[in-house]
Amino acid sequence: MNEVLSKPIGIFDSGLGGLTVLKELKLTLPHESFIYLGDTARTPYGSKGYETIVRYSKECANFLINKEIKLLVVACNTASSLALDVLRSQVACPVIGTINEAVNQAVEISKRKKIGVIGTDATIASSVYQERIKSLSLDVEVFAKSCPLFVPLVEQGMFDGEIVDKIVELYLKDFKDKEIDVLILGCTHYPLLKDAIGKYLGLSVNIVECSRAIANEVGGLLSAGSKKANVPKQKTAGDIYYITDGVSRFNQLAQVFLGYDSVSAAKIEL
Amino acid sequence: MNEVLSKPIGIFDSGLGGLTVLKELKLTLPHESFIYLGDTARTPYGSKGYETIVRYSKECANFLINKEIKLLVVACNTASSLALDVLRSQVACPVIGTINEAVNQAVEISKRKKIGVIGTDATIASSVYQERIKSLSLDVEVFAKSCPLFVPLVEQGMFDGEIVDKIVELYLKDFKDKEIDVLILGCTHYPLLKDAIGKYLGLSVNIVECSRAIANEVGGLLSAGSKKANVPKQKTAGDIYYITDGVSRFNQLAQVFLGYDSVSAAKIEL
Repeated sequence: MNEVLSKPIGIFDSGLGGLTVLKELKLTLPHESFIYLGDTARTPYGSKGYETIVRYSKECANFLINKEIKLLVVACNTASSLALDVLRSQVACPVIGTINEAVNQAVEISKRKKIGVIGTDATIASSVYQERIKSLSLDVEVFAKSCPLFVPLVEQGMFDGEIVDKIVELYLKDFKDKEIDVLILGCTHYPLLKDAIGKYLGLSVNIVECSRAIANEVGGLLSAGSKKANVPKQKTAGDIYYITDGVSRFNQLAQVFLGYDSVSAAKIEL
Repeated sequence: MNEVLSKPIGIFDSGLGGLTVLKELKLTLPHESFIYLGDTARTPYGSKGYETIVRYSKECANFLINKEIKLLVVACNTASSLALDVLRSQVACPVIGTINEAVNQAVEISKRKKIGVIGTDATIASSVYQERIKSLSLDVEVFAKSCPLFVPLVEQGMFDGEIVDKIVELYLKDFKDKEIDVLILGCTHYPLLKDAIGKYLGLSVNIVECSRAIANEVGGLLSAGSKKANVPKQKTAGDIYYITDGVSRFNQLAQVFLGYDSVSAAKIEL
């Protein structure tokens, strides 16, 4: 096998949410090896400012680059919204974020040309989703809303029930009279609230998850044209997990997220 | 004025919650000058592990010690619960945490000898409150509960309403049949939910806030015995605010917390 072929794919998130992306990547690319980094000591990113998010994202990327990855996946919408251009300018391998492919899908499937986007405070304030949608189709109306309590809910393992329903209503009631037919889940934690969100918005709204979109984009990139050689025929190394805090909690939750028998993360300091 | 007298008091928290302590300190000690440090870039601490909390607490303490403070107030219950002994062993000035005086007050006023304590995951898991209460009075029953969604609620400015009431009920319903007559708010964010908590538990439960207890302890320490000279007659320097992220948001919220015309924080990296 050639040298690039056998290199792992690096993937980072501010914490646990990126595991929803890793799960999809592993389904789509079963023969690839992954190195996951969760910056659990400094999570969440979504309530923090531009400089801090860029600084933390660069530190995560540098850690993975030093592991000789062939491709970097930024599995955090906040980092993708604010730091992707900076990372691309500093990193030699391809860098894939959460946004472009999800937006492509959303614009493609929206018939009413009315799309909703939800995410963290930082993601929504960055307007990256809104601008990307407009750059693809000027006649699409975009409705964006930050949902800052969704991440704490997911981190507490609260995915349904009365409190979740009330908080979903609090954030999404503005969408009810907008006639959106697509909602982008612009945060890698949100797929875990998909049932509650879907129940509230009803069947007429299609939900786009970044995790699936990223997996498609990475799969497409690795198998495209001259890069075809980069898709290995079988898995040659196990996946590796690094986190900056909370090993036992991460291992427990990662097993639930990924459906594994056991996950064993190593703790590092950034 | 002598040298020690004119030195400021240092105070740190993982973010904004410590401002509830600063407010009480300023009321109790109007002639003292304060240096406040909020580690907003790495907030919250309460969901993180021992090593991370101790490391961050040491970094906050070292920053303030380098500002030549005469006394260090750890205005974060999580840091007080996990890092106070480490800080005391490494810092030359007195170090005051959130716990001891609040526990003293709680034990003193509890007639039924049944005390409730609420705090972050890390604070409650540390058992520091529970052990301190037992060390003062073996015949007190202690009921402890972590309330991990309270900090995100406060950080979102949600202090009342249906969602707050439901989350208060979720966490505090276990206390209803325990006949506690005192509840310690073991997190500096929680005083902002005091009305909702009081409404749910009823008038028979006295609520003890760490912020007032700390102010009493600091005031007592500075005016006690030979240290009487440490209480200045008038304020000689303005208060200084440092944070690690989110200057404009901090300034806005600090004005609300403290009731000032303006607060101007400086951003630092830890």
